[in-house]
Amino acid sequence: MDQEVDSSNLSSSTFFKKVMSKEKKKSKKVKPQLLKGFKDYPAEDEFVRREMIAKVQNVFERFGYQPLQTPALEYVETLLGADYGTEAASQIFHFVGPDEVHMGLRFDLTAPLARYVASQPNLPKPFRRYQISPAWRADKPDPGRFREFLQFDLDVVGTALMAADAEIMTVMVETMKALDLENFQVKYSNRLILNGLAEFAGLDEAQAPDMFRILDKLDKQGREAVIAELGAGRVDQSGDEIKGMNLKPEQIAKIEKFLDIPRGDFETTLEKASELLNSYEISRRGLAEIREINEYLLTTGAAPEYCIFDLTVVRGLGYYTGPIYETILTDLPEYGSIFSGGRYDNLVQRFSGQQAPATGASAGVDRLLAALKKLKLIHSKKSASDIIVATMDKDRINEYFLMAAELRRYGWNVEVYLGSNRRIPKQLQYADRMDIPIAVICGSDEFESGEVTIKNLEAGRKVAEDVGDREEWLKAEGFQITVPRAEMIATIEKMLKPK
Amino acid sequence: MDQEVDSSNLSSSTFFKKVMSKEKKKSKKVKPQLLKGFKDYPAEDEFVRREMIAKVQNVFERFGYQPLQTPALEYVETLLGADYGTEAASQIFHFVGPDEVHMGLRFDLTAPLARYVASQPNLPKPFRRYQISPAWRADKPDPGRFREFLQFDLDVVGTALMAADAEIMTVMVETMKALDLENFQVKYSNRLILNGLAEFAGLDEAQAPDMFRILDKLDKQGREAVIAELGAGRVDQSGDEIKGMNLKPEQIAKIEKFLDIPRGDFETTLEKASELLNSYEISRRGLAEIREINEYLLTTGAAPEYCIFDLTVVRGLGYYTGPIYETILTDLPEYGSIFSGGRYDNLVQRFSGQQAPATGASAGVDRLLAALKKLKLIHSKKSASDIIVATMDKDRINEYFLMAAELRRYGWNVEVYLGSNRRIPKQLQYADRMDIPIAVICGSDEFESGEVTIKNLEAGRKVAEDVGDREEWLKAEGFQITVPRAEMIATIEKMLKPK
Repeated sequence: MDQEVDSSNLSSSTFFKKVMSKEKKKSKKVKPQLLKGFKDYPAEDEFVRREMIAKVQNVFERFGYQPLQTPALEYVETLLGADYGTEAASQIFHFVGPDEVHMGLRFDLTAPLARYVASQPNLPKPFRRYQISPAWRADKPDPGRFREFLQFDLDVVGTALMAADAEIMTVMVETMKALDLENFQVKYSNRLILNGLAEFAGLDEAQAPDMFRILDKLDKQGREAVIAELGAGRVDQSGDEIKGMNLKPEQIAKIEKFLDIPRGDFETTLEKASELLNSYEISRRGLAEIREINEYLLTTGAAPEYCIFDLTVVRGLGYYTGPIYETILTDLPEYGSIFSGGRYDNLVQRFSGQQAPATGASAGVDRLLAALKKLKLIHSKKSASDIIVATMDKDRINEYFLMAAELRRYGWNVEVYLGSNRRIPKQLQYADRMDIPIAVICGSDEFESGEVTIKNLEAGRKVAEDVGDREEWLKAEGFQITVPRAEMIATIEKMLKPK
Repeated sequence: MDQEVDSSNLSSSTFFKKVMSKEKKKSKKVKPQLLKGFKDYPAEDEFVRREMIAKVQNVFERFGYQPLQTPALEYVETLLGADYGTEAASQIFHFVGPDEVHMGLRFDLTAPLARYVASQPNLPKPFRRYQISPAWRADKPDPGRFREFLQFDLDVVGTALMAADAEIMTVMVETMKALDLENFQVKYSNRLILNGLAEFAGLDEAQAPDMFRILDKLDKQGREAVIAELGAGRVDQSGDEIKGMNLKPEQIAKIEKFLDIPRGDFETTLEKASELLNSYEISRRGLAEIREINEYLLTTGAAPEYCIFDLTVVRGLGYYTGPIYETILTDLPEYGSIFSGGRYDNLVQRFSGQQAPATGASAGVDRLLAALKKLKLIHSKKSASDIIVATMDKDRINEYFLMAAELRRYGWNVEVYLGSNRRIPKQLQYADRMDIPIAVICGSDEFESGEVTIKNLEAGRKVAEDVGDREEWLKAEGFQITVPRAEMIATIEKMLKPK
């Protein structure tokens, strides 16, 4: 087994020997650090992630989407594709693994889906699936931009009907609503219209993806920056030079005409777009698809108040072949698109030649969570524990365990303090730092008299916050009560909401 | 950004160019395949995984364990450690990433936990955490042995009390019970006793871990194989030679005396072990710890009927420093230990020098699930959908959408058939393959008369299985009923259990 890995990867095996021999010198300490661009998610993060995922999952399954989990590692060829472009290639964490195989960590959930569908020609279709998984990108990390990120995707593979795109948009709307979001817009357009624009502006096939990538920056960088990049290029705020496409002024003028089309009213936008691009067959198809989707949205009543036809929706990726959509929060436009996607009819084909038109959308969990927190729509806690049983007396830990077991049977989450310090203030300090609401305290006095002391730490912390003096409340009446052991549960029940 | 990755990893960038240029030739198809040792988890797997995880999580949190999520990638130095041994090193998927950093995929959840705790000196302790995450090993894959596997770990860091070990064992028992398992044993021993055995048998410090590794094979390989490996070695079934430790016969005889100690009755085993090893201080400590844990187990009542003191419990890993435990299913002994762990007081120290005694256990999700399936304790399904709305008429998809929305409001999971085929038998065939229980069918006749046809596919499939003739039941009465649209929900409710 060792041999297998060693022979396939000699250089790193030398590396290991170096590391191991360092390790042998016991005095040498390893610095406990995270890789750049990675983070830990403690309980406080995990509780809200779990809450969000449960809500999202529920919406997806209500519409018939089924869960799928694919491996983190795939053949590099699976991850790459002419349709992704070279930018994706440089963003993949990849390496030579056992048996000289080039493998990489998935950087999205779409490439693995395409591989999955292509590998199973007999999969019942249309195949509706969702996946909630991390993905990895070797981007330069920024504050708030991580190299590992959890995302959820929903897609339906094997249907060319525009009804499927309307359904994806409806699920997007329902997902946002399930997360208690109200002020959002799902903006949509169609890549075919943009292909017509590329024709209109006289771009060749290789130039079109560059135009899409640049137009996609409109919301974030503004029109001036976009025009500059279509032309000679520009220097960004950090002083970095951004190469331009060097389009001719008359080409740029044509694209500007497109950008001038007003947004907001569906019929007006559609009319103006038709005037400009109706002579291109591909745009005509795109505009017809837009109209069909709009019909679904209007008549099924799910989404028309949230879904806006907006020609400035472009999406950066090259692989889209039809409708495209993105979601913004109108209260937090600076968050950009938080849930987006589109139709990609050719992605499965690159594996099998099998026709499998598909459409779908994806969202990053952390950005969405950050928005929910900012809007105070989700609240976390540091600990799942309702009660801590303090342990004054080391020789009675058995009895504390029994007490905890009794409380758990009632449905509460209960931890027994197992630190080495037997002093109650120290134990309560721990409980305060963990935000545990209730402490049960039992010393030799209580054991003798058959009583138990119950402390409402949560109420105490609130008062302490108000009066600004922790010592005060520790002495204060009312937060602490000593009752007969038989009344323990009833007393706690009054302090805590029962589960 | 491209540049950053390119410059740090020139050779692979050349590789990408090669791949990309291959991709450019559109005719060249990529083979849709999984990497060796990896697998996909479709809905059928995901539903049972989710069910199990919810149960496990619930038990952990009832005992005050908090969720934590750490990154998949870590510094290789974080993953390795003198305590893990060289075997671990060869099993890590590792590579040189951006900025020339050596990184690797975690191969367990313990090393990341130690890194996390060491990096946060102010973390409230004892720190009880659980983590449910995949880990990766570059082992040679076998059928049933994968290079990516989901596992759950629970650990408490910052307590040296044996009560903590007793608690871990109690949580293990409660977890098994929450999964409806009854016939299992949590077997425990103590590494300190084995250290005394190493002394008794005259092994040096470097030899002890080898003995642990070999004794750990007792259950699986049998006593004869173990004795052979302690001595000159042996040839296994596949014909591979396994090197022996080349211990002297008198050394092996001493180890055999240890193996002769009867298991089963706590007091007898403890007495015999004391007779053999009491002159070694380290064994005396181990035996005292065993007695203390047994006290907890007996008096707190949680686990004595499941927890068995068993000197043949060894655990392969080098880092254990005290109690060790493992869980077997008495109905499925061939599954080996499915939930195991122990105390490791020095693991955090290798980072920080900070003393952080710790104990915990971990289990592989898939092996446990396989056991639950074998014992028929968990059941899955292919789809979360309760109802499929068939779509005979393409021009009425709006109306099918509205029908589905109405059914969803009632709490059901409902999908609308969006494939290109409008023929009902084809659509029902899809529903049968997905095991969807109910189909709602509405053609122009029904639309005209204000009716809807409801088909009980599930009942039909059962009959078809019995009579072995699908055509028969399709024609059969009773599985299909046409009712006024207003009675749609009530009719389905009679067929389905309401949610």
